[in-house]
Amino acid sequence: MAVIVQKYGGTSVGNVERIFNVARRISQTVSAGHRVAVVVSAMGHSTDELIALAKSISASPPEREMAMLLATGEQVTIALLAMALQELGCPAVSFTGSQAGVLTDGVPLNARIEQFSALRVREALQAGRVAVVAGFQGADANAEINTLGRGGSDTTAVALAAAIDAEVCEIYTDVDGVFTADPRVVPDARKQQEITYDEMLEMASQGAKVLHPRAVECGKENNVVIHVRSSFHSEPGTLVKEETGMEKGTAISGIAWDEDQAKIAVVGVPDKPGIAALIFGAIAQGGISVDLIVQSIRREGENDILFTVHADDLDKALLILEPLTKAIGAKELYHQRDVAKISVVGAGMVHHSGVAAGMFCALASEEINIEIISTSEIRISCLIEKSRVYDAARAIHRFFKLADDVADLEKSNLAPSFTSRNNQVCRGIQ
Amino acid sequence: MAVIVQKYGGTSVGNVERIFNVARRISQTVSAGHRVAVVVSAMGHSTDELIALAKSISASPPEREMAMLLATGEQVTIALLAMALQELGCPAVSFTGSQAGVLTDGVPLNARIEQFSALRVREALQAGRVAVVAGFQGADANAEINTLGRGGSDTTAVALAAAIDAEVCEIYTDVDGVFTADPRVVPDARKQQEITYDEMLEMASQGAKVLHPRAVECGKENNVVIHVRSSFHSEPGTLVKEETGMEKGTAISGIAWDEDQAKIAVVGVPDKPGIAALIFGAIAQGGISVDLIVQSIRREGENDILFTVHADDLDKALLILEPLTKAIGAKELYHQRDVAKISVVGAGMVHHSGVAAGMFCALASEEINIEIISTSEIRISCLIEKSRVYDAARAIHRFFKLADDVADLEKSNLAPSFTSRNNQVCRGIQ
Repeated sequence: MAVIVQKYGGTSVGNVERIFNVARRISQTVSAGHRVAVVVSAMGHSTDELIALAKSISASPPEREMAMLLATGEQVTIALLAMALQELGCPAVSFTGSQAGVLTDGVPLNARIEQFSALRVREALQAGRVAVVAGFQGADANAEINTLGRGGSDTTAVALAAAIDAEVCEIYTDVDGVFTADPRVVPDARKQQEITYDEMLEMASQGAKVLHPRAVECGKENNVVIHVRSSFHSEPGTLVKEETGMEKGTAISGIAWDEDQAKIAVVGVPDKPGIAALIFGAIAQGGISVDLIVQSIRREGENDILFTVHADDLDKALLILEPLTKAIGAKELYHQRDVAKISVVGAGMVHHSGVAAGMFCALASEEINIEIISTSEIRISCLIEKSRVYDAARAIHRFFKLADDVADLEKSNLAPSFTSRNNQVCRGIQ
Repeated sequence: MAVIVQKYGGTSVGNVERIFNVARRISQTVSAGHRVAVVVSAMGHSTDELIALAKSISASPPEREMAMLLATGEQVTIALLAMALQELGCPAVSFTGSQAGVLTDGVPLNARIEQFSALRVREALQAGRVAVVAGFQGADANAEINTLGRGGSDTTAVALAAAIDAEVCEIYTDVDGVFTADPRVVPDARKQQEITYDEMLEMASQGAKVLHPRAVECGKENNVVIHVRSSFHSEPGTLVKEETGMEKGTAISGIAWDEDQAKIAVVGVPDKPGIAALIFGAIAQGGISVDLIVQSIRREGENDILFTVHADDLDKALLILEPLTKAIGAKELYHQRDVAKISVVGAGMVHHSGVAAGMFCALASEEINIEIISTSEIRISCLIEKSRVYDAARAIHRFFKLADDVADLEKSNLAPSFTSRNNQVCRGIQ
């Protein structure tokens, strides 16, 4: 008998029929002898509808009241799911975030979980009941309702698994698991059995939308085994955990991309201390997140500063930068929409040489130009033209033979075999 | 500067436009220099929609989960109203029942308020903010969410007014106040300036749907002045309070009726102790409320027991009574649908003779047969044919000259003047 946390997203509980499907799956897990705590999101588009309602009252609704409003979404789901479970003869009890003991830090719409007592959840499980907990929400020390922001329900589930010492935290989603690349783009992408937290973090941050980075971080901190799996069938998905087994040392665990990037270049910046701080300080004050940053010396006494922002933030960033670039004496402010970032991720990369070269080679074989390169210990990212990102993904996937099984993969990383297309370009790095 | 509680029902906050109307009215009260705490219900039909959702999952949803579900309705309203107030530049903060300190007794869907600390409401008012409180809900000592059942939002408002020592609890509704009779039926019905708690209780219990009896009881216990008034204009409505001023001693404060009654007669019951207890014990066990009860001696050794139930409960009551009447040796079980109860209510009735006689006379003048008569200190009720209830209301209203001003009313109660219609019938009681 194991203690298991299961998390179902808004689509999985989007209507009464789907709520019953979820209830049946939970009920089966209980019948198999396990104790189950469930975390759910708001039904389907209900959060969007509540936001629209608020926006019809105020262009910028007060955040505290927005959290008060949004928290009702999950409260509806937990009540209905607990009803459905009991209708199936499976004892169940629902808890709001506050009742479950999710203590938050008081930031209304983007709270962090400070503590998760889960006292009543444990009591319910011991009494043989399924505990149904509202994701995405908690209450601070003054009983103020907070919501957790993006990835909140995933994070609630992982934090709950840590709090009740669950054997596994199952995240149910509409994909089969974590793939070496998005299977809609790379048809022979391979589902991974296991992946490390760090790899998952890079994959998630780089645009794989399966599991929110925040939940992965929470899993890593608390050593919670996360099982990303499909809500449509019972095949196993991908385990996210500290030590991966048979795939340990694999150079590349996957390819991820983000198509919503925009490039900004501040060209001909006088090479003086504090200029970069000035530029990025102003950008940060505008509430804009910067992703890749590259600074290059152009000619004596002058720099070019290149960076990327989310495409939606480009206009705002330019508004801030136009007067600023003049003030600091830069020569030109240049921007480019329609760029995408593609990344190769792998914990074993650090032990395997040639991954970066292989990636550049794969891109070159498709005649894809690289605008910016950025690397971490387990990731290499390139900014490329947006229209070529799927070609790039397929070329890299093919180059590293990610579709093959593990043994082949290992081999391919060390000695990439060439297809006819990249034969010419990549001979040099064999 | 006064502390004022305002309560707005579901229709008043049914959509965003109406929420803004309510916000403007609150804002005006604040601008006039008052401190305002507001109690609101769920928007329009949202409670009905949540109930329908639950019923689509289970024919009899577990009550605890039902309370969890329904409580979201008011939570949506308080958030939106607080947003609208702030949009109008009026500082405001919303509180769930739990946050406002509504401590309930743990009965999920029909809880009573055990305590109302209103600590955060007082803090908000002192800080110059409008406190917007969710009606109809609270939390018990274990932080379980309870709803208050019928009349819950009115009761929340009156209890809050008691807790924060408000000068008045204003109940906004779609009528102008409490009338001597329903103005849709009796066009010259008169709006009353003041009415006592007991009169209001009898009026409310007897079918005037303006203010729930439970809220009136709560007002009476805590001596809260309740102002029933229109949400469509700013004319004063009716004050419900302990001592009425200028109208004190008025014989009749109004006429109320209930069209959803059914009569049951157990005929020829052996006159033995315990028989009535047996009959009404069985009815009570079936969860059926009995209203009027009359027992009359029919002939030696035999009684007739007559009583009324809600029309919806008639079939269930008959199912219980059919075997029982046989078992106790009663002669016949008789029932009648399509009956209505009409009542004359007035705190001054006890000091004025002739009210009962006047009522019977008014009914006789319309040739309306009286099936059952029941009286309390401040009320006389008659069960009559349902199709004649509006005629009865108009005849009684006319007879006692309730449309006239107070001085005339006083006179008319002591010496009813006769119209041509009741001239013949009622000469005897002049």
